[in-house]
Amino acid sequence: MSDKIRVAILGASGYTARELMLLLLRHPRVEIAAVVSRQEGTPWVAELHPILTGRLALRCENLEPRDLARRGVQCAFTCLPHGVSMAVVPELLNAGLRVIDLSADYRLREPEVYQEWYREPHQDPAHLRQAVYGLPEIYGPRIREARLVANPGCYPQTVILGLAPLVAHDVIEREDILADAKSGVSGAGRSPRPHTHFPECNENVSAYNVGHHRHTPEMEQVLSEVARAPVRVLFTPHLVPMDRGIFTTVYARPRRTVSEAELFELYRDYYSRAPFVRVVAHLPNSKDTLGTNFCDVTLRLVRQRIVILSCEDNLVRGASGVAIQNFNLMYGLEETLGLL
Amino acid sequence: MSDKIRVAILGASGYTARELMLLLLRHPRVEIAAVVSRQEGTPWVAELHPILTGRLALRCENLEPRDLARRGVQCAFTCLPHGVSMAVVPELLNAGLRVIDLSADYRLREPEVYQEWYREPHQDPAHLRQAVYGLPEIYGPRIREARLVANPGCYPQTVILGLAPLVAHDVIEREDILADAKSGVSGAGRSPRPHTHFPECNENVSAYNVGHHRHTPEMEQVLSEVARAPVRVLFTPHLVPMDRGIFTTVYARPRRTVSEAELFELYRDYYSRAPFVRVVAHLPNSKDTLGTNFCDVTLRLVRQRIVILSCEDNLVRGASGVAIQNFNLMYGLEETLGLL
Amino acid sequence: MSDKIRVAILGASGYTARELMLLLLRHPRVEIAAVVSRQEGTPWVAELHPILTGRLALRCENLEPRDLARRGVQCAFTCLPHGVSMAVVPELLNAGLRVIDLSADYRLREPEVYQEWYREPHQDPAHLRQAVYGLPEIYGPRIREARLVANPGCYPQTVILGLAPLVAHDVIEREDILADAKSGVSGAGRSPRPHTHFPECNENVSAYNVGHHRHTPEMEQVLSEVARAPVRVLFTPHLVPMDRGIFTTVYARPRRTVSEAELFELYRDYYSRAPFVRVVAHLPNSKDTLGTNFCDVTLRLVRQRIVILSCEDNLVRGASGVAIQNFNLMYGLEETLGLL
Amino acid sequence: MSDKIRVAILGASGYTARELMLLLLRHPRVEIAAVVSRQEGTPWVAELHPILTGRLALRCENLEPRDLARRGVQCAFTCLPHGVSMAVVPELLNAGLRVIDLSADYRLREPEVYQEWYREPHQDPAHLRQAVYGLPEIYGPRIREARLVANPGCYPQTVILGLAPLVAHDVIEREDILADAKSGVSGAGRSPRPHTHFPECNENVSAYNVGHHRHTPEMEQVLSEVARAPVRVLFTPHLVPMDRGIFTTVYARPRRTVSEAELFELYRDYYSRAPFVRVVAHLPNSKDTLGTNFCDVTLRLVRQRIVILSCEDNLVRGASGVAIQNFNLMYGLEETLGLL
Repeated sequence: MSDKIRVAILGASGYTARELMLLLLRHPRVEIAAVVSRQEGTPWVAELHPILTGRLALRCENLEPRDLARRGVQCAFTCLPHGVSMAVVPELLNAGLRVIDLSADYRLREPEVYQEWYREPHQDPAHLRQAVYGLPEIYGPRIREARLVANPGCYPQTVILGLAPLVAHDVIEREDILADAKSGVSGAGRSPRPHTHFPECNENVSAYNVGHHRHTPEMEQVLSEVARAPVRVLFTPHLVPMDRGIFTTVYARPRRTVSEAELFELYRDYYSRAPFVRVVAHLPNSKDTLGTNFCDVTLRLVRQRIVILSCEDNLVRGASGVAIQNFNLMYGLEETLGLL
Repeated sequence: MSDKIRVAILGASGYTARELMLLLLRHPRVEIAAVVSRQEGTPWVAELHPILTGRLALRCENLEPRDLARRGVQCAFTCLPHGVSMAVVPELLNAGLRVIDLSADYRLREPEVYQEWYREPHQDPAHLRQAVYGLPEIYGPRIREARLVANPGCYPQTVILGLAPLVAHDVIEREDILADAKSGVSGAGRSPRPHTHFPECNENVSAYNVGHHRHTPEMEQVLSEVARAPVRVLFTPHLVPMDRGIFTTVYARPRRTVSEAELFELYRDYYSRAPFVRVVAHLPNSKDTLGTNFCDVTLRLVRQRIVILSCEDNLVRGASGVAIQNFNLMYGLEETLGLL
Repeated sequence: MSDKIRVAILGASGYTARELMLLLLRHPRVEIAAVVSRQEGTPWVAELHPILTGRLALRCENLEPRDLARRGVQCAFTCLPHGVSMAVVPELLNAGLRVIDLSADYRLREPEVYQEWYREPHQDPAHLRQAVYGLPEIYGPRIREARLVANPGCYPQTVILGLAPLVAHDVIEREDILADAKSGVSGAGRSPRPHTHFPECNENVSAYNVGHHRHTPEMEQVLSEVARAPVRVLFTPHLVPMDRGIFTTVYARPRRTVSEAELFELYRDYYSRAPFVRVVAHLPNSKDTLGTNFCDVTLRLVRQRIVILSCEDNLVRGASGVAIQNFNLMYGLEETLGLL
Repeated sequence: MSDKIRVAILGASGYTARELMLLLLRHPRVEIAAVVSRQEGTPWVAELHPILTGRLALRCENLEPRDLARRGVQCAFTCLPHGVSMAVVPELLNAGLRVIDLSADYRLREPEVYQEWYREPHQDPAHLRQAVYGLPEIYGPRIREARLVANPGCYPQTVILGLAPLVAHDVIEREDILADAKSGVSGAGRSPRPHTHFPECNENVSAYNVGHHRHTPEMEQVLSEVARAPVRVLFTPHLVPMDRGIFTTVYARPRRTVSEAELFELYRDYYSRAPFVRVVAHLPNSKDTLGTNFCDVTLRLVRQRIVILSCEDNLVRGASGVAIQNFNLMYGLEETLGLL
């Protein structure tokens, strides 16, 4: 199958890796050539993820970047924890691979901002400068050329896609924005912890990291670039009892008189060439995006506020689906290939 | 049992009626003397609510208010739909009963406001003037004397209790308040509808009535009274996949420099005699209030905003529990009787 | 796209139709040429199923079979209620289409058995005789030739696939079989009813149709054919609070001494060419099959019983996925095409 | 409050301890005098269980049995892991306390059986002989006199209560019994583990310990005593995605011709003085018992089998509620006190 692009996945055990493999198996132009993991032994991928039984006959291997290059791997998807990614990515790039990094390590342009929010110095500022933030609707042209794409966070995408048309057109007060997000539990990762123990988070809603979540600087960085002026967001994430899905309600204040119809037109125009942003008139359900790479967005103008409602599947659009969208752009494929 | 107060429940089939009966069965000073319903035949209450099998050997009867009076009923809890309550309540009052009305019919002081939000003229403006809004933490003294208590809505309690100390002390901008609420599905009532069909609302988050929910004027009325000045709230309710519980995140803007410590002290002081409001330091889980009459409240000062987090069980604190709290006040009993 | 087979879906509003459309959109050799529905007006399919927004730009149309033929439709998937299907299928066949019927109307060979279980006479006994029961692992060769395939029920597949190797090899007592199934709520369809109202079925388990479920004769018919002798199953379905998934526990009594190893070998051999039955050694999770066309099967030999554990996604393997598997066989395509 | 019985809870952090405290707070004749735990420091109970905030102003203390005696504690509830209980219970008894042990340590009469199923030798065979199995419907008179009650397991109660009338009257084949149970996740305890991580067990059904669950010998021991002959049960537990509730489906084979009506009469008679077993005609929902001490039981006679459906709240009836029922019997109180 000479027309297939050989890819590797680094970090096999988590939910984003699993979702990525499930999506890549459907992609007509991809071959998963290696799954790299520091797991003891060389377990079958299907032992980690039984849903892959009979579908992906690969073992997790403890391979070095140069081994991957030797196997003809062109692109690596790194599904590693933050802090770990930036130790591996330089070697992958040096071995000639292109990299789509699903961690947070290359999302923030300034090493100082990284250090402030992640409480450790950045280890790879050189590549940080080259990394392109992997939100295709904003940075599509640069993603096409990128060797290193920093795949965006799940929450930021709902906030950024929900606000980009407004800040691009200078419609709202840039420092009076509130984003209240509700997320399914898979976003917390696969490691069991007290607050993700079923009897604790089932039948429960809670807020966490109020005003201090690490996705905040990511949103503000991108929105500020879109606005060409500083944008500030007060972001409050909540955990709700479901597997997948993020539903974000954003509150913004218009700087001038606008009508709902005008705003809808502005959104539809802004996303006219974005195949994965659906500007809808109805109030969306997060479930309408389940298993898809779509972000559904609508808005209402009420009581002198613009209320934007934005939702996605946090594991697809929020992580592994958008990674493939980025991959498609990087390799000159149709943006939607394997994703519809 | 001559020391028991005989009560009747009108409207038997819904979730608030069921919860009310479960709570009243535990109340040491109450005897359920009648359950009134327009159900065909005279079904056993336990046929409508199997959880009551073997616990409440009463039939639903189609009784008139004077029949209730004759049976020695002193207090009626009306669990009827809005619009229906105001047709029945006058007769109950005329028959000499005191009434705790769990519908929305007597919550809004002004008939015009009722008509604006409920799209029908108010049928009983005379009693509307006498009705006391049944939020004990705000109107305790008046509830003690009331013959007609308008039991408060589920959402408004989380918003009002979350904001009352701030507006009472003039700490925040009164017209720059956002309340983003997440509710379990039992709040939508017991009638099956498409959006409450399990496969639709399970694994889903959605918003509804954005900026237009009928609980808005209720919140604004009470908060304006507390503030002695107009208060405006932009309220957005969301449906999350759980049975019970409301978690409300309120965003307010301080009018002056305040510290978190100062705010906590203000809250603790304001609620020092309120047995059912727990001002907590930690971020609460809605589940911490499950099955209880507590409202848990905390706050955070972040990015020039006060973020208040407030939660309750919508069927207990949000409806039937607070109804009993009101009952206790009306009958000179300890406020917590039967509720701890 | 001349190499695409044009298909129509009849009955658009339910969950199986939605799942079918989602799967067909990914199928490389299918074009959805028409969606037929008796809905008022001609709504967009995406109005019924917002998840399809931007993916399927078709309206529901009230078309006759001959209209479909004229449009070049070769195959119709009928997602209609039982009783309705058998009124439409004859016309589709007469118009020259091949039909995959997802209702129960053509599953039971004998009109008398249909009448006994569905309480109405069969309207189309002529085609009933020609219909092939669409379980590829059992009737693959006949499905390839079929003009009318009766797509199998969700529960029966878990029971039949779990037992077929045992009855084929005469390992168990054929009249001492118990099947205890646990199903997600989507199996109950899309119409809201009291028992599928979220606050009723969430946090709840219940049994229904104990020993009388209409899927019973379907299981017995197929297993009896496999066994070439009468097989009887006592079947008890349960509703559990999840969207999708069936987990069935089958209890059988061996007729002779067998070992677990021997039984596993028998199963692996029986399904050696079945790409969608995974005989696994571990105890499976229904979630391992979520969104897939796989049925995972394992067994344990305990206390003189063979306990078979069998699970699937009720909307994919249990309905729309197996329909495509049948389609693939009927059109000489690879059995797994579009399904992995 | 001289009429209150002072009790202690040993082992504070788990779900049964929490539920027990919530129930005891409502009991009119109990005072919680001490909460004993080996937690570091002496945390407030409400720090472990925020739902108890403002309701139980006690710290966890590392107290010895003689300290408890000195404080006037008459009865200890031990909510400790199996293996730990049997090291503590002897000292409690020696200090003059009566003990209700919620672990499995004193449930099995024979030390050999304990060792076989729990893989360690029993440390306290002397008291094992005196312990009474705390199922009031079977051992009520002996519980009244007991100094040590072995509180029964959650699953066994549904199975035993479901079968007792049948084996007592010799209606069924005693060695041809299957029990298929579906349990909420709180039964797995409070320690986070991979299989109870929300995204793993939500939207999932699985079986575990097929035919080998440790509750099996407990069921068989009690049923054999009721039958005065050996009874064997093949028991298969399943995990379903809900917090609480067990729904058990038991399959038995009648030894003689019986009618459903006759069986119902037999059940109603057998439980005529059991306030917490509700023999119902309808198919029960596990949710009908939520938060209650009831076990709902019904049966159907189908295809030569008796199918018994039995359900309970695993934390109340299955653990902490029945512990209080036992307490009431031990102290000569009304059996239902504090439990309705």
